[in-house]
Amino acid sequence: MSDEVKKRKIEHVSIALGQDITAPQRANWNDIQFVHQALPEVDLDEIDTSVTFLGHRLRFPIFMSSLTGGHPEVTSINRNLARAAEEYGLALGVGSQRAAIVNPDVAPSYAVTRQYAPNAFLIANIGAPQLIAQSRHPAFRVEQVQQAIVAKETGAGVCREQALLLRDCGVGAIDVGGAGGSSMSAMEAARPGSRADGGTANIGVLYRDWGIATPICVVEAGIARLPLISTGGVRSGLDIARALSLGATLVGMGFPFLKAASESYEQVCALLETVVAEMKVAMQLSGASSIAELQQTDIVVTGETRAWLTIRGFEEQLRDMAQRRWHKYMATEM
Amino acid sequence: MSDEVKKRKIEHVSIALGQDITAPQRANWNDIQFVHQALPEVDLDEIDTSVTFLGHRLRFPIFMSSLTGGHPEVTSINRNLARAAEEYGLALGVGSQRAAIVNPDVAPSYAVTRQYAPNAFLIANIGAPQLIAQSRHPAFRVEQVQQAIVAKETGAGVCREQALLLRDCGVGAIDVGGAGGSSMSAMEAARPGSRADGGTANIGVLYRDWGIATPICVVEAGIARLPLISTGGVRSGLDIARALSLGATLVGMGFPFLKAASESYEQVCALLETVVAEMKVAMQLSGASSIAELQQTDIVVTGETRAWLTIRGFEEQLRDMAQRRWHKYMATEM
Amino acid sequence: MSDEVKKRKIEHVSIALGQDITAPQRANWNDIQFVHQALPEVDLDEIDTSVTFLGHRLRFPIFMSSLTGGHPEVTSINRNLARAAEEYGLALGVGSQRAAIVNPDVAPSYAVTRQYAPNAFLIANIGAPQLIAQSRHPAFRVEQVQQAIVAKETGAGVCREQALLLRDCGVGAIDVGGAGGSSMSAMEAARPGSRADGGTANIGVLYRDWGIATPICVVEAGIARLPLISTGGVRSGLDIARALSLGATLVGMGFPFLKAASESYEQVCALLETVVAEMKVAMQLSGASSIAELQQTDIVVTGETRAWLTIRGFEEQLRDMAQRRWHKYMATEM
Amino acid sequence: MSDEVKKRKIEHVSIALGQDITAPQRANWNDIQFVHQALPEVDLDEIDTSVTFLGHRLRFPIFMSSLTGGHPEVTSINRNLARAAEEYGLALGVGSQRAAIVNPDVAPSYAVTRQYAPNAFLIANIGAPQLIAQSRHPAFRVEQVQQAIVAKETGAGVCREQALLLRDCGVGAIDVGGAGGSSMSAMEAARPGSRADGGTANIGVLYRDWGIATPICVVEAGIARLPLISTGGVRSGLDIARALSLGATLVGMGFPFLKAASESYEQVCALLETVVAEMKVAMQLSGASSIAELQQTDIVVTGETRAWLTIRGFEEQLRDMAQRRWHKYMATEM
Repeated sequence: MSDEVKKRKIEHVSIALGQDITAPQRANWNDIQFVHQALPEVDLDEIDTSVTFLGHRLRFPIFMSSLTGGHPEVTSINRNLARAAEEYGLALGVGSQRAAIVNPDVAPSYAVTRQYAPNAFLIANIGAPQLIAQSRHPAFRVEQVQQAIVAKETGAGVCREQALLLRDCGVGAIDVGGAGGSSMSAMEAARPGSRADGGTANIGVLYRDWGIATPICVVEAGIARLPLISTGGVRSGLDIARALSLGATLVGMGFPFLKAASESYEQVCALLETVVAEMKVAMQLSGASSIAELQQTDIVVTGETRAWLTIRGFEEQLRDMAQRRWHKYMATEM
Repeated sequence: MSDEVKKRKIEHVSIALGQDITAPQRANWNDIQFVHQALPEVDLDEIDTSVTFLGHRLRFPIFMSSLTGGHPEVTSINRNLARAAEEYGLALGVGSQRAAIVNPDVAPSYAVTRQYAPNAFLIANIGAPQLIAQSRHPAFRVEQVQQAIVAKETGAGVCREQALLLRDCGVGAIDVGGAGGSSMSAMEAARPGSRADGGTANIGVLYRDWGIATPICVVEAGIARLPLISTGGVRSGLDIARALSLGATLVGMGFPFLKAASESYEQVCALLETVVAEMKVAMQLSGASSIAELQQTDIVVTGETRAWLTIRGFEEQLRDMAQRRWHKYMATEM
Repeated sequence: MSDEVKKRKIEHVSIALGQDITAPQRANWNDIQFVHQALPEVDLDEIDTSVTFLGHRLRFPIFMSSLTGGHPEVTSINRNLARAAEEYGLALGVGSQRAAIVNPDVAPSYAVTRQYAPNAFLIANIGAPQLIAQSRHPAFRVEQVQQAIVAKETGAGVCREQALLLRDCGVGAIDVGGAGGSSMSAMEAARPGSRADGGTANIGVLYRDWGIATPICVVEAGIARLPLISTGGVRSGLDIARALSLGATLVGMGFPFLKAASESYEQVCALLETVVAEMKVAMQLSGASSIAELQQTDIVVTGETRAWLTIRGFEEQLRDMAQRRWHKYMATEM
Repeated sequence: MSDEVKKRKIEHVSIALGQDITAPQRANWNDIQFVHQALPEVDLDEIDTSVTFLGHRLRFPIFMSSLTGGHPEVTSINRNLARAAEEYGLALGVGSQRAAIVNPDVAPSYAVTRQYAPNAFLIANIGAPQLIAQSRHPAFRVEQVQQAIVAKETGAGVCREQALLLRDCGVGAIDVGGAGGSSMSAMEAARPGSRADGGTANIGVLYRDWGIATPICVVEAGIARLPLISTGGVRSGLDIARALSLGATLVGMGFPFLKAASESYEQVCALLETVVAEMKVAMQLSGASSIAELQQTDIVVTGETRAWLTIRGFEEQLRDMAQRRWHKYMATEM
């Protein structure tokens, strides 16, 4: 890894922790509303939050999609995340492996992950060129982390056509990585180096809002009938429940876990406890005692999310999502 | 009742009186507009505001849904409400009876209700467990207040499917208790005690806006063809008229009456006179001389309320509500 | 006229002149957009702005709907308006005649109108009871002003059903008097006397926005196929053109003319010149050389106006109004 | 050219450079969103941005639609623009030729254009009367600039019917000149001279927002199947890409180039480099390696733009634009 690339990576982490690099006007998660179920059908203590993803049973449908990797200074962040993944049985993203492959001295920043999370489900990023180069490089044990290919977008989202293409390419799952969370364009624009180049910084600002909002991606990519990870702008357990109800199997959170992990392992645990508690409230109030039931409860989609999905041909699907219990009720009556 | 529960109740009253605990962005009542009828068909003095609810003739379709009960300090509040209910022939909600059943020393705070309102129509809250326990407890004369089961939601609303379920369970009426008024989540978050627990307070804030707006509930629950009480965010006689026109039989107001009753009996009477006068103006200007006619006048539903109801399958019903007089006119012409 | 009624009238004028008594959030006129016609089809100097209303040829489709009458102090206002009506060949509203009939000493405030506008088309307000009483009262020569019955609403609008009813009653024209302009509720609330009575003032505030917006009324009342006067919230020649394009024959402005007339005759003339110039620009840019052509040009209706009219059953009509030239083009091609 | 006309022209340039004379609430370009294509199909360096317009191959689909001309003081502005047009192979608008025809002493301000851009594609404005007069006037060599008739609107847009009319008149292309950019009404209103005349200034303000937004014009005028120039409110390479995807062949920018050219030739080049870089990012991220492919990629139209186009009869076309790749995918599958 060139010094420039290394410097850029550590700058990204610093920027993500120190600045607001989210696209502020993306309120698409609030476009998704559950239909409250007044009668207490579900006991909070009996809610089952486990899911099966690519053959792995996970206790929670939460994916810690770390932004970091490839630099000695971020080792403690990765360790805190790994410990939590192991403790809570979560899926964990360990960032790009390109740095480790081309530059063995940063390998420990990755290796710490498997060391502290021997049993956790890890998802690593490897670009296509690196995938080809992996077999002949001894510094990084790829076989430990790679078990299936998860196609991953990083902030601009996956649409219907791309999801079908990815399915046809044989990927096992898709991380839709939609717009609404940390924006790579904005991060790049915020880097000290890029400020010097007015042109590039302006492009970062201009394209800050480019991309498909995450809830839209979950619906669009759903057409491929692959397991989906919903990453992008997820900020609470309520958002997690919304993504699952739209059809995701896992829900990724990057920035909030990165921030917690930069403080301590305990902060990561506290964040997890909070979002799980929040998610369970949504499940209870919408009458879902399992993730499968959550995916059959009623949700009302409005605003820009509805406008987009309607013109893209998903109007009937939105109508169905808003009336799943009604259709079930009618079917029972007849 | 444990000291903790007792303390929480009095705190709820204090919070409700001293703070704004309503969900501010819920403007759903303003989504309901009457179609003005220019020709003066109705004499203000001849408007009949009476309704029949569960076999009881009430002079006004107004239900004072008190939030309080179960604490000696609130006895005067209940007395002021009870006197007004008796004087105006209103339905009165007397809060949860659980406290009185498990803790006889707070019974007087409830007993004052029947004492000052010997003939008024009272609606008491009893949870399912208390309903079973009632027969063997001498401290509270349940038979005086309970005459039919009114299923009551407390701020998150009743949807179509739940209304049908409640009907199938044999309830006699539904208080839809929709979102838009005092928020239990927000109240809980505002309690001094809960502030200490960051997690719980955050959940209160996160779920402050959870739930189905009251006007939506009235339309959705209307499918069960049971008498409906429309409680939640009602703040004027115009809102009362809107709820009735959407199909409610009674309209509940909690916080405004609680606030008036904490001051004096006279304030409760003044509030009642005001909302009745406001309601009559809406009736006159929309050409309705009775509540039954108000329920046949034209209303135009727009905004978020229309967006929700459209995707939930009530589009035709909204169209009909906006053209009831036209359909009548066309039927007469043919 | 009782002293109380006389005092109220003069207060209304004072309030209208000194305060903003319009409903501020009614932006319905801006919901109406012309489709610009780029090619210069129309010479500004050859635009014909004349209309025929109830058999009278008027040089401009503008109706000065004065709010005032019945008080000696307003005589100069009426004189200024009358002179302008005579000079420009406009229709002029001369306010309620009830005062003159029951109280001869205020008759001069009305008589000045005919004195200074011997040939203008006058429209007077007479309530139904006064209409019956007119023949036996010598103080006011009703036969000079009354030539046909124009049913007039005063700020809350006429809907489809009421327009049909008025047609069936035999009225010759309708002044839709829609919401958006000076609000009688707001005026009543702003009167010094009414402030004392908190209840009434509150009702004024609560009902400030009651009523059907004027552009909506013009479309709804259009079903009766009677000549329409579009009064309510019209504030420019562009609004006048919008109302005409929606189907009105005359467009009324009250408050702006009242304000100008309270200053001088010259101010009334200046205002007229301005709104006529503004109206002609709209006609030229939309390719209309006459009022009849303006009523066949394309207009796009959006926002709340479209939402209301769609649910009331006028969707096809709006679509047609937006494509009148297209339908004509297609008819020519075939 | 009279002194008054000459003065007005130089004032327009001053106003355009010194004040914000754009209609601020026209956000229609943001109503157009690309559907991000996650898989990197396109190499940034291999993107072909060339287009053919009226038989001329241009390296970029960018048209510098200069506002100026006809005054010695603006000669340097025109020279800077001409040098850039020559250097980058752009189309250049050289403003109204009327001044040069009637007043030979301002001809150099135009002649500089061809002097510095001997090979560039120039588009000159000539009004119909001047077109007739051209043959008998020796001062201006019309044959150098006029090669085909491009019908040009100047800020209020071209609708469907006018586009068809222009096609039937035999024009070779249309510059839709839509609303959203510099407003001639606003400029006229801002002129020192016009302020004196309250009436005219008010008309400028009143009609500031008149006209059809540029993206709407591109869709509407598209029906004529002529090459389109999309001018009006274009402010970035992303807007350029949006206009092209809607169907334009060239995209005009006036004010930004005028501002840059008033500073230096280098500023014009820098602006060009920036907007080309921005445009290429949009092409890459939407998977288009050429302008033809950009016109077949998916775009989602929302907001006021969608509301207008829907009621004007373009609903199906918008739906198709949002699903072009889907239809292609389905066609391939079948």
